[in-house]
Amino acid sequence: MAQTAPARIKVGIVGGTGYTGVELLRLLSRHPHVELKAITSRKEDGLPVADMYPNLRGHVDIAFSSPDKAELDKCDVVFFATPHGVAMNQARELLDAGVRIIDLAADFRLKNPSMFEKWYKMPHACLDILAEARYGLVELDRDGLREARVVGNPGCYPTTVILGLAPLLEGGLSLIDTNSLIADCKSGVTGAGRKGEIPLLFSEAGDNFKAYGVAGHRHQPEIEAQLSRLHGSLIKLTFVPHLVPMIRGMFSTIYARILPGAREVDFQKLFEERYAGEPFVDVLPAGQLPETRTVRASNKLRIAVQRPANGDQLIILVVQDNLVKGASGQAVQNMNLMFGFPETAGLEHVAILP
Amino acid sequence: MAQTAPARIKVGIVGGTGYTGVELLRLLSRHPHVELKAITSRKEDGLPVADMYPNLRGHVDIAFSSPDKAELDKCDVVFFATPHGVAMNQARELLDAGVRIIDLAADFRLKNPSMFEKWYKMPHACLDILAEARYGLVELDRDGLREARVVGNPGCYPTTVILGLAPLLEGGLSLIDTNSLIADCKSGVTGAGRKGEIPLLFSEAGDNFKAYGVAGHRHQPEIEAQLSRLHGSLIKLTFVPHLVPMIRGMFSTIYARILPGAREVDFQKLFEERYAGEPFVDVLPAGQLPETRTVRASNKLRIAVQRPANGDQLIILVVQDNLVKGASGQAVQNMNLMFGFPETAGLEHVAILP
Amino acid sequence: MAQTAPARIKVGIVGGTGYTGVELLRLLSRHPHVELKAITSRKEDGLPVADMYPNLRGHVDIAFSSPDKAELDKCDVVFFATPHGVAMNQARELLDAGVRIIDLAADFRLKNPSMFEKWYKMPHACLDILAEARYGLVELDRDGLREARVVGNPGCYPTTVILGLAPLLEGGLSLIDTNSLIADCKSGVTGAGRKGEIPLLFSEAGDNFKAYGVAGHRHQPEIEAQLSRLHGSLIKLTFVPHLVPMIRGMFSTIYARILPGAREVDFQKLFEERYAGEPFVDVLPAGQLPETRTVRASNKLRIAVQRPANGDQLIILVVQDNLVKGASGQAVQNMNLMFGFPETAGLEHVAILP
Amino acid sequence: MAQTAPARIKVGIVGGTGYTGVELLRLLSRHPHVELKAITSRKEDGLPVADMYPNLRGHVDIAFSSPDKAELDKCDVVFFATPHGVAMNQARELLDAGVRIIDLAADFRLKNPSMFEKWYKMPHACLDILAEARYGLVELDRDGLREARVVGNPGCYPTTVILGLAPLLEGGLSLIDTNSLIADCKSGVTGAGRKGEIPLLFSEAGDNFKAYGVAGHRHQPEIEAQLSRLHGSLIKLTFVPHLVPMIRGMFSTIYARILPGAREVDFQKLFEERYAGEPFVDVLPAGQLPETRTVRASNKLRIAVQRPANGDQLIILVVQDNLVKGASGQAVQNMNLMFGFPETAGLEHVAILP
Repeated sequence: MAQTAPARIKVGIVGGTGYTGVELLRLLSRHPHVELKAITSRKEDGLPVADMYPNLRGHVDIAFSSPDKAELDKCDVVFFATPHGVAMNQARELLDAGVRIIDLAADFRLKNPSMFEKWYKMPHACLDILAEARYGLVELDRDGLREARVVGNPGCYPTTVILGLAPLLEGGLSLIDTNSLIADCKSGVTGAGRKGEIPLLFSEAGDNFKAYGVAGHRHQPEIEAQLSRLHGSLIKLTFVPHLVPMIRGMFSTIYARILPGAREVDFQKLFEERYAGEPFVDVLPAGQLPETRTVRASNKLRIAVQRPANGDQLIILVVQDNLVKGASGQAVQNMNLMFGFPETAGLEHVAILP
Repeated sequence: MAQTAPARIKVGIVGGTGYTGVELLRLLSRHPHVELKAITSRKEDGLPVADMYPNLRGHVDIAFSSPDKAELDKCDVVFFATPHGVAMNQARELLDAGVRIIDLAADFRLKNPSMFEKWYKMPHACLDILAEARYGLVELDRDGLREARVVGNPGCYPTTVILGLAPLLEGGLSLIDTNSLIADCKSGVTGAGRKGEIPLLFSEAGDNFKAYGVAGHRHQPEIEAQLSRLHGSLIKLTFVPHLVPMIRGMFSTIYARILPGAREVDFQKLFEERYAGEPFVDVLPAGQLPETRTVRASNKLRIAVQRPANGDQLIILVVQDNLVKGASGQAVQNMNLMFGFPETAGLEHVAILP
Repeated sequence: MAQTAPARIKVGIVGGTGYTGVELLRLLSRHPHVELKAITSRKEDGLPVADMYPNLRGHVDIAFSSPDKAELDKCDVVFFATPHGVAMNQARELLDAGVRIIDLAADFRLKNPSMFEKWYKMPHACLDILAEARYGLVELDRDGLREARVVGNPGCYPTTVILGLAPLLEGGLSLIDTNSLIADCKSGVTGAGRKGEIPLLFSEAGDNFKAYGVAGHRHQPEIEAQLSRLHGSLIKLTFVPHLVPMIRGMFSTIYARILPGAREVDFQKLFEERYAGEPFVDVLPAGQLPETRTVRASNKLRIAVQRPANGDQLIILVVQDNLVKGASGQAVQNMNLMFGFPETAGLEHVAILP
Repeated sequence: MAQTAPARIKVGIVGGTGYTGVELLRLLSRHPHVELKAITSRKEDGLPVADMYPNLRGHVDIAFSSPDKAELDKCDVVFFATPHGVAMNQARELLDAGVRIIDLAADFRLKNPSMFEKWYKMPHACLDILAEARYGLVELDRDGLREARVVGNPGCYPTTVILGLAPLLEGGLSLIDTNSLIADCKSGVTGAGRKGEIPLLFSEAGDNFKAYGVAGHRHQPEIEAQLSRLHGSLIKLTFVPHLVPMIRGMFSTIYARILPGAREVDFQKLFEERYAGEPFVDVLPAGQLPETRTVRASNKLRIAVQRPANGDQLIILVVQDNLVKGASGQAVQNMNLMFGFPETAGLEHVAILP
């Protein structure tokens, strides 16, 4: 497929009114190789995008259009920034028209259709496309993604936990106890999307901290499936998400027990070597700890590796911006790869600090 | 009416699921002279109040009940913590049963029914009761309120602006230019209530500042009516409300031009003397400026008077907790007065700082 | 010692300018059995307390006094809301004058003087008093504390972690693996005190999340010492504190592996029975999860017990207000016990929500 | 001076450790025509910049150097992101070496040296350079700034107030009463800089709102001087700054009385025409209100013009990011102009929303 990139590809977005949608618009509107063709919203048909998101005034001058009028089939690629279950129903038609698909929802994340049905409460609508789709974690499948027609863009929590554990598990490594993995994760409020729900109000989520989904969260099977695939054997973990009173940002504290045979391993070096050359994964120097603000509004993910008192407990701390590397930025990274653009095109922003 | 207070009066709350409702519960549950009889919510009928508001666990052990089962007519007083338009439709029946009413919505705030209809988009349902109702700003009508059967509890912004201007306008004083009054007001997010609306999300209201309602806000006619009544002539003002990324708190910056004949007035002293002895209005010493956190979760309202460079511009700065002095605390203050309790009963909390 | 309580005891506070100091003032100023005699601050000598903390205007009318003028020796009890190392140098003189001591710093928390020296970088100044001092976690040592002359008030993190694990470890119970305990803890910013340090600025800590002290934190030996004492054998744990952009509040997520022999235990019931009757420890019903705001500005600590999929991983979630149950409220609880007052005197506040 | 721009100019920054410094680094590190040569900090000499500001990891690889080693005289332009009083003492030497200067502090903002001395408590050190310096508000002096050797970059509040009033005052227009101008301004906390001061702590400034500097603020004479110059006669205004619990963002609500002779003016059109073509000033359509987040981390300034009930009170609402258009972005805009680069070079960021 595309090896010589065109100057600009035609891009469509389905469902551009949510946070991943507006973040895609922010990134794509300044992307050197993208021409924004259509943004669909049945409800906001005709409304200039910049009227809903005034930060885009002067940057995006198209209006939302209803899905039936959007001519998505004339795009080179379509992003789905929609609720779960939308992309899988429109994928066949777009693929047949030669359009490639990047879904930011969960439709193409879980290879196992019964798992999808269990966690998302609907049967999968296109098993053959699901079979062909690739999980869009670039750092783990760069070559496969170049050729992909359909990409399931990873969930936000899974991006941090999988990249945080990959160097310890890839290829069946025996470094850590795979029966006691714990991911204690914390997310800013945009992780829950742009929905008028009481618990997401400033008055409720502000100056407050809580856990949620302790009894079971949809990202857990996604993490476990990817880690199991990486390791070559079934991996389970304990996963507890928490809600932080901040707008953007995700912080995962991952606990792994070092196996007796791995006590001599230099874990700092292991991580540094694994991610050397990765443009968007930054392993911090030994001793430094990450903060979410160091990646705010950027596509970077930062990792620190800690081993207190040189004991058997390994602690991996991972930060990202949930809307960028955890969603829309990673989607653009996938697009760049799929169309032969430099992987960092349109993604070179410096994080906003303070 | 009641001069010797009973040990405890029976209290009902209609619509206890919003923020003014839970704040009433917080205050009344520890009030020495109150027995909570009923809290109504059609939607949450049967749900223990403390399940919705876990801060009340161990303090409030009753459940929401549907309005028809609540036996409100056996209460001594009923608070309406409801949307506008509810109290006026239930007032007749309660009054006939000998129950007194404190409405935290706007039904009994505007004496002029056409103004009510204009701003609240509904005709008033009980003009005779409206005629009898008293505006519940204790500091301006202490004696009248003792005898009131129906109280319209003031709006949050009006409480700050009216108390901030009263010493300058009462009784037709000629101290300031009444044609150029400006109230630049700022409110925490709870001022908008507990509603699942997008603009109130943490992700939207957080780390952001905006104005709203510049073209017209319901509290403006309320302020103007009260100030006109106080002054004895028609008063208009410019009123611009803003939304602050904080949970509680209201800050009003009021600008008044000093009339030439009043240049020798000691305004600091004027305010101090006007509010001497008021348990809930605190005039700060000259030079000190108020902060909203100094009244957080308390019924205090603090005022500072500034006259930069001893010029003709007077600036009055007023803070309160919008949910306490600006709503539920003031309602309890009214109740105390109506039933002959000490005015500060159940309202002696020290503000939470930090 | 004191079995019949006097109407009011005389109370002094050393170092009243920090957050635990002002919180003590908030609580003690409304305490029915306390007369505030002195608040010391060398730097602010003569400044009315309410000038520094305007929330206390109308509630506290004394001024800071320098330590040498404060007549602390005429008090019944003195609270030290000071940096580590102050109380231990003044304890002897006060004890000799018959004054009892509650230290909110760490001077009397670690029984092992070499541990104290290792973590606080100073030798302990009064080993005999350290030997007699009691660790002020009321729920674990109610009888011992009644008679105490010197109390080391627990650290904020330790309060949550020890109470969260006590039911599983007390008396040498064999319910959980004591080799893999993890406490992933999150604190609001007031936990760091009132210090003009860059990382605590709003511009730095706001809209941000980070871990700190991963390589070692002073509260870890305190937790381990208490848990070891409770269990009767050496207990180690992994402890990772994080900083949350909120003012007050602490959330501890504690991970414990259930031992094979304990798989049939009803952990929910175990916790409920252990803390039945405790006025300040609230075990949530099965399935409910805690939020820090449900305890904001109150002395409550809430615990939830979760066992996802009924597996071997037990998760205990604990919340408290770090300045109340985690500091000043707990100190007042200790005082109540020491002087024979009802344990809840002055501590019955309903948490501020929203 | 420079009409054909070099590919890249050499840039130095004096005092790169504060917020305007790191923001300059964020902007300049991706600027297409800039080569960062030196960042000075006496205190942090040798420390890699990215160690202090990890958001710059991978973007800025130089270290702080002490001022004496920095070879600033080999730069084309030097930014001073220093406290007031530093630039004026180093300006002569740099100018003599042919280096142009942009000072982000106040040294070159006030043309009147006695005003400078009055408000900044130090005599001005180089009156001749002050005489030649230009006030760096591009929208009001584009041609003058192209040739400037020394630029006094405007204060954050003045940028909003001057641009908000310029269309009404320029060239001696008689549209508004110049005796009753009021600017009620609100700033995020970064406006106060990166200083370890108690009032700027998250625990103090969070969930709080306050006014400050009501009796007099340094930005007032700056605003008045510029407005007077624009209008051609002495202009005074009432200026009240407030502190908002947000990191970035500034909101100014400006009140002006319309003169009787100007009642027929279309103020919306006046503003739209005045700023038509300005790349960084965006006049919102009639009826839309600005929010600070719509300009977060961008160089845009947005203005709305309101005239409630078509009366005599004009309200101008202005937002900007205080660190970008209010400081470092505006400084880069000045640099672009001075060196003949496109005015928007390196400043085309879309604002971060949410």
